[in-house]
Amino acid sequence: MPTVKLVDENTTDPRIKAVFDDIKATKKIAHIPNIWRALASHPEHLELCWTRLKAIMKPGKLDLLTKEIIALAVSATNGCDYCINSHTAATQKLGLDNEGLGEVLAVVGLYNAMNRLADAYQVEPDILPEPR
Amino acid sequence: MPTVKLVDENTTDPRIKAVFDDIKATKKIAHIPNIWRALASHPEHLELCWTRLKAIMKPGKLDLLTKEIIALAVSATNGCDYCINSHTAATQKLGLDNEGLGEVLAVVGLYNAMNRLADAYQVEPDILPEPR
Amino acid sequence: MPTVKLVDENTTDPRIKAVFDDIKATKKIAHIPNIWRALASHPEHLELCWTRLKAIMKPGKLDLLTKEIIALAVSATNGCDYCINSHTAATQKLGLDNEGLGEVLAVVGLYNAMNRLADAYQVEPDILPEPR
Amino acid sequence: MPTVKLVDENTTDPRIKAVFDDIKATKKIAHIPNIWRALASHPEHLELCWTRLKAIMKPGKLDLLTKEIIALAVSATNGCDYCINSHTAATQKLGLDNEGLGEVLAVVGLYNAMNRLADAYQVEPDILPEPR
Amino acid sequence: MPTVKLVDENTTDPRIKAVFDDIKATKKIAHIPNIWRALASHPEHLELCWTRLKAIMKPGKLDLLTKEIIALAVSATNGCDYCINSHTAATQKLGLDNEGLGEVLAVVGLYNAMNRLADAYQVEPDILPEPR
Amino acid sequence: MPTVKLVDENTTDPRIKAVFDDIKATKKIAHIPNIWRALASHPEHLELCWTRLKAIMKPGKLDLLTKEIIALAVSATNGCDYCINSHTAATQKLGLDNEGLGEVLAVVGLYNAMNRLADAYQVEPDILPEPR
Repeated sequence: MPTVKLVDENTTDPRIKAVFDDIKATKKIAHIPNIWRALASHPEHLELCWTRLKAIMKPGKLDLLTKEIIALAVSATNGCDYCINSHTAATQKLGLDNEGLGEVLAVVGLYNAMNRLADAYQVEPDILPEPR
Repeated sequence: MPTVKLVDENTTDPRIKAVFDDIKATKKIAHIPNIWRALASHPEHLELCWTRLKAIMKPGKLDLLTKEIIALAVSATNGCDYCINSHTAATQKLGLDNEGLGEVLAVVGLYNAMNRLADAYQVEPDILPEPR
Repeated sequence: MPTVKLVDENTTDPRIKAVFDDIKATKKIAHIPNIWRALASHPEHLELCWTRLKAIMKPGKLDLLTKEIIALAVSATNGCDYCINSHTAATQKLGLDNEGLGEVLAVVGLYNAMNRLADAYQVEPDILPEPR
Repeated sequence: MPTVKLVDENTTDPRIKAVFDDIKATKKIAHIPNIWRALASHPEHLELCWTRLKAIMKPGKLDLLTKEIIALAVSATNGCDYCINSHTAATQKLGLDNEGLGEVLAVVGLYNAMNRLADAYQVEPDILPEPR
Repeated sequence: MPTVKLVDENTTDPRIKAVFDDIKATKKIAHIPNIWRALASHPEHLELCWTRLKAIMKPGKLDLLTKEIIALAVSATNGCDYCINSHTAATQKLGLDNEGLGEVLAVVGLYNAMNRLADAYQVEPDILPEPR
Repeated sequence: MPTVKLVDENTTDPRIKAVFDDIKATKKIAHIPNIWRALASHPEHLELCWTRLKAIMKPGKLDLLTKEIIALAVSATNGCDYCINSHTAATQKLGLDNEGLGEVLAVVGLYNAMNRLADAYQVEPDILPEPR
């Protein structure tokens, strides 16, 4: 059960409605995902989160699928159920099939193990080229 | 300081040498990274880690750069210095420039924030399509 | 489903009853929260946890609301559902409204992002004053 | 060693200079902290991070010290050295002494333990009031 | 709800069936745990995970109960519900009673606290003997 | 650099000296580890941490080596350098050799991977026996 009352996706609050409308238009979706309805309990924070996400998730040097794959890798590493569900759905919508999903998660699992081993053995960085 | 003595990369121990030779051949590198020299303190575990990494990091549905980007995203989320250094170097070697690196890390930072917000508001998953 | 049988809050076991009575008196609550009923499966650990929590959560240089806000920030960063629920309820009971909760979580989200960026860029600490 | 070349704090790049000048004016500091010099390797991301931080860290329902305490609690829970150093310094600058710091960290330690115990025993949330 | 369709434990796919049969024979269980049915959505990854787990979880210098206790400690620290449930059940099957479980979790809770305090105070390692 | 001035291990402050003397007597060591000297900046918290650690780390159903192995597994999973160093040293002092250390870390690495895979596939717990 959410810890705040989710804001109705048909709210007439102009500040919130402006963000909700932009979310629907930008993501081409009919309904507002629950996370945005929860964030709307603090409209300024809703605006800050959406503005940031919209700017970062637009295609750039990386395409959108790669960005959603990173989002899934981060969410799986943090064990965030809501985000794992939404980013898995997003990668599938963008064409990643079960075999591709399996590859993403294989790499996620592998480095969650290797990270802990490198920490546990207190391994020092190999000599790196000067900062670029 | 590593917690075990790093195995000499020129070791003549046949079991370890076989893995070290394969690491150099597969990664086309002249020196054995410190993590493998530490893992060699337990040769069976060294074999298990290398066999697994070699199988998972070969190009498949995802290309190698995408896999190294996932490795970097996981390592940054876990705060593993050794792995952050090695995977940043790997992505650069594969052609990711500072602008691309900035995009990867922007997505990593964004979802480390969003994951905690989704957890903190105890948001329930939006209705998803049936499992595929 | 808890992994141990929760101890009945009306237990007559004197060692457990002494802690349960003190929890109810100290927190001014009528029922024992589930975490304490689970910890009671190992009475000595129950005593150690409660003694510690009671000592640390008493008002000091910081008031109780600030301490509950820290508890919520830690619980959200760790993604602990039980604790997120109980500390959100505690902050609300102490007068934090949705706007205040939104501010707490905005800071939590912000630094979960900034922490990962500082790690990912391997930024070294700025010169600090000598330890105080 | 940072993984990118830190941007000179006296850079004449107008986009970066505008942010650096605002950081110095807002935080009343003479030098640009390293994290911002690293983020400047991707100017758009620098702007996004600074705009967000400036908006979230202004005093609101919570005063600045409380916000810096939350930042320290998050950074300690994530084990981010750079952020632990900077937020410890910030809380001290705002008047938190060693006794107050000890109280903050006592609460951080306590709930890092309690979070894991609640997870480990799979404790279900106590009945909560309806979402507010 | 799993994000992939769980593979039927009676699948006739030879590659998957071979692993499932080995899991049942090795663990002496009648049914395939859900994690393996999910991993089977990518048969090569299923093989890699099972081969690794089988090799690492065989008794060696450490007995199986000690290894399951480590698995539980890791799973509780990561807050992985599925793994907490399965490793708690495994330790109980191997003879750990509630008092023993309480001791394991007391140590897990204690060091989740101490880890954060050592990080938060930025304590440097005590002089250690040379690497062994 | 620690964020507080480490208390001199020869302090004459009676409250701190009492704890330091007990640490040396209990652990049979000549010098006070840095973590305790940092915690001494808040004497009440020092007492709380030491009393708790002393009670939890005494041999019980589990012997001391098993408890130190759990401490190392938790510390490696959290990536706490100070604690990884001290608990690795402690396990070695108690007789764990490099082969045994390798086994501990192999299990730690394995389940850090499996935890993330179970989370990522959103696998639901297998039916468990009733709580005991």
